[in-house]
Amino acid sequence: MKLATLNNGHRDGQLVVVSRDLQHCVTIPQIAMTLQQLLDDWQQKAPQAEEIYQALNAGDVADAVAFEQQHCESPLPRAFHWADGSAYVNHVELVRKARNAEMPPSFWTDPLMYQGGSDAFIGPCAPIEVSSEDFGIDFEGEIAVITDDVAMGISAEKARERIRLVMLVNDVSLRGLIPNELGKGFGFYQSKPSSSFSPVAVTLDELSDHWNDARLHLPLLSTYNDVAFGKPNAGIDMTFDFGQLIAHAARTRPLGTGTIIGSGTVSNKQGTEYGTAISEGGVGYSCIAEIRMIETIRDGKPSTSFMRFGDRIRIEMLDPQGQSIFGAIDQQVVEYSYKA
Amino acid sequence: MKLATLNNGHRDGQLVVVSRDLQHCVTIPQIAMTLQQLLDDWQQKAPQAEEIYQALNAGDVADAVAFEQQHCESPLPRAFHWADGSAYVNHVELVRKARNAEMPPSFWTDPLMYQGGSDAFIGPCAPIEVSSEDFGIDFEGEIAVITDDVAMGISAEKARERIRLVMLVNDVSLRGLIPNELGKGFGFYQSKPSSSFSPVAVTLDELSDHWNDARLHLPLLSTYNDVAFGKPNAGIDMTFDFGQLIAHAARTRPLGTGTIIGSGTVSNKQGTEYGTAISEGGVGYSCIAEIRMIETIRDGKPSTSFMRFGDRIRIEMLDPQGQSIFGAIDQQVVEYSYKA
Repeated sequence: MKLATLNNGHRDGQLVVVSRDLQHCVTIPQIAMTLQQLLDDWQQKAPQAEEIYQALNAGDVADAVAFEQQHCESPLPRAFHWADGSAYVNHVELVRKARNAEMPPSFWTDPLMYQGGSDAFIGPCAPIEVSSEDFGIDFEGEIAVITDDVAMGISAEKARERIRLVMLVNDVSLRGLIPNELGKGFGFYQSKPSSSFSPVAVTLDELSDHWNDARLHLPLLSTYNDVAFGKPNAGIDMTFDFGQLIAHAARTRPLGTGTIIGSGTVSNKQGTEYGTAISEGGVGYSCIAEIRMIETIRDGKPSTSFMRFGDRIRIEMLDPQGQSIFGAIDQQVVEYSYKA
Repeated sequence: MKLATLNNGHRDGQLVVVSRDLQHCVTIPQIAMTLQQLLDDWQQKAPQAEEIYQALNAGDVADAVAFEQQHCESPLPRAFHWADGSAYVNHVELVRKARNAEMPPSFWTDPLMYQGGSDAFIGPCAPIEVSSEDFGIDFEGEIAVITDDVAMGISAEKARERIRLVMLVNDVSLRGLIPNELGKGFGFYQSKPSSSFSPVAVTLDELSDHWNDARLHLPLLSTYNDVAFGKPNAGIDMTFDFGQLIAHAARTRPLGTGTIIGSGTVSNKQGTEYGTAISEGGVGYSCIAEIRMIETIRDGKPSTSFMRFGDRIRIEMLDPQGQSIFGAIDQQVVEYSYKA
């Protein structure tokens, strides 16, 4: 089943069931008005929505309309919990290497995770509003799952069964604000502005055997200013699977239904020391910081700049037939100024 | 106006208007079923709820019933954003001092803030479930505000006008897990289990001139196992007012209505170097960690232990007439074990 949320002027938007080919959609007010409502009562309501989904794919839904990705909110326009792991430890090791810091060996067994703002996500095609280019604006292409209720202390194996939906994320980061924030010891806060998610969230059965071991084994495509920037496979070099990330999040507290858990920036080592750009025949990167770190390690300083006002980032995933699974995150960075 | 949420078996509970003396309450389904619904449309709905509140105080509401604090959820049983500042810098300085670390001078001008889990708050009288006493279980008595929508980049002065409600918090901390987590550099996550809030949230006019300069100038009473443990004045030594904390939170992203911003552990210097226990004639502390830090500085090691299973903590605030303003957080620590 594929689900999306259309902008209807309300804070939680309008839930729609979307056809597998992303061409049509239909509201299901008789089942749920919003995605959170569906998640709140998933056991009972998801099978009803699934029936509509099957009819929609068969062309048997009379009031279906064209599905327009640009009218989408993030599937959950606001959520009660958004925690992002760093499951691709290669990415973490690179960050450290670029500043000549050793990575503690425990990072291979104990996931890094931070909690992000979830009260004001932006839509997949919404502008990324930032006050200053000096903040070091970067995209981060990631995979995320939405969970059902999760009991405190759950095992990683049991946690896998609590995954309801999968999405893509652009976890925008303000790299220039990170050093000061991490230096204070309390983690990210201002350096992580509003994230956006793919137009469509899908159930695991939509991913067939590409979903395996609680990882999604397909390339994540990042296109930066119309140039292919990254296509690493999200199933490769993912040290912690989503079951482990959820179990980590739930170690000392339960998780409420609708919790979003992110993978961290998708990153492949590619048999080289730290990956290779697409222009050099590699799979490239899912954020600018990685290429800057490689430049730093190689040349002593970075040469690729962070995003400028007007820059565009597109993040998408295709199935082997070239069909978009989740629709595309497609955003432009714009200058923000406060208006009273 | 005073508002609370009763446990009715639904995830967001049942909003009630509570009389000023906390004796009676009434549901307002014609206005809003839940507190989040009221906040989502505050401008229109709050005046309607206020009318009912006035009638309730006058004894003119026929279907009013007895208000039972023990049936309360936290006012928002789940919220879209819970960020906690460390506005009482004395507390932060003490932590550092106890481990012989200098506090950076910037901590007096740039607030520390972390984001906590908001998808599964527990009720004000709910047990604090923890897997092991070795986690170093501590309470933290704090003040929190609930905001309306806040625009990115708002000034501290303008931010004050976005405060809708005030509550008390018990921001439970697992001290034993903090060093490892902060050592990883991403801030708190597992070391901050579910928080609980006072039974009642109140509008600013309920606090009369005790609310001044976006601070609440009354003693916060912590009673630990039936012994008075702390009574510091929340208006004293609060380096950052709530306007500054909200502006900090909103520097790079907007805040959605229903965002909860906490003050951090209330702590007074009391003219001594680091405060004095109530048994010594001082105002005491709002968490166990502070007395342990003072013991460490004074004796070389702490002698007070963290909370044990069975321990109770009560957090409350009285007006000058001795009337409870928010009702009481009153919780017992219990052992948790995962059941599949």
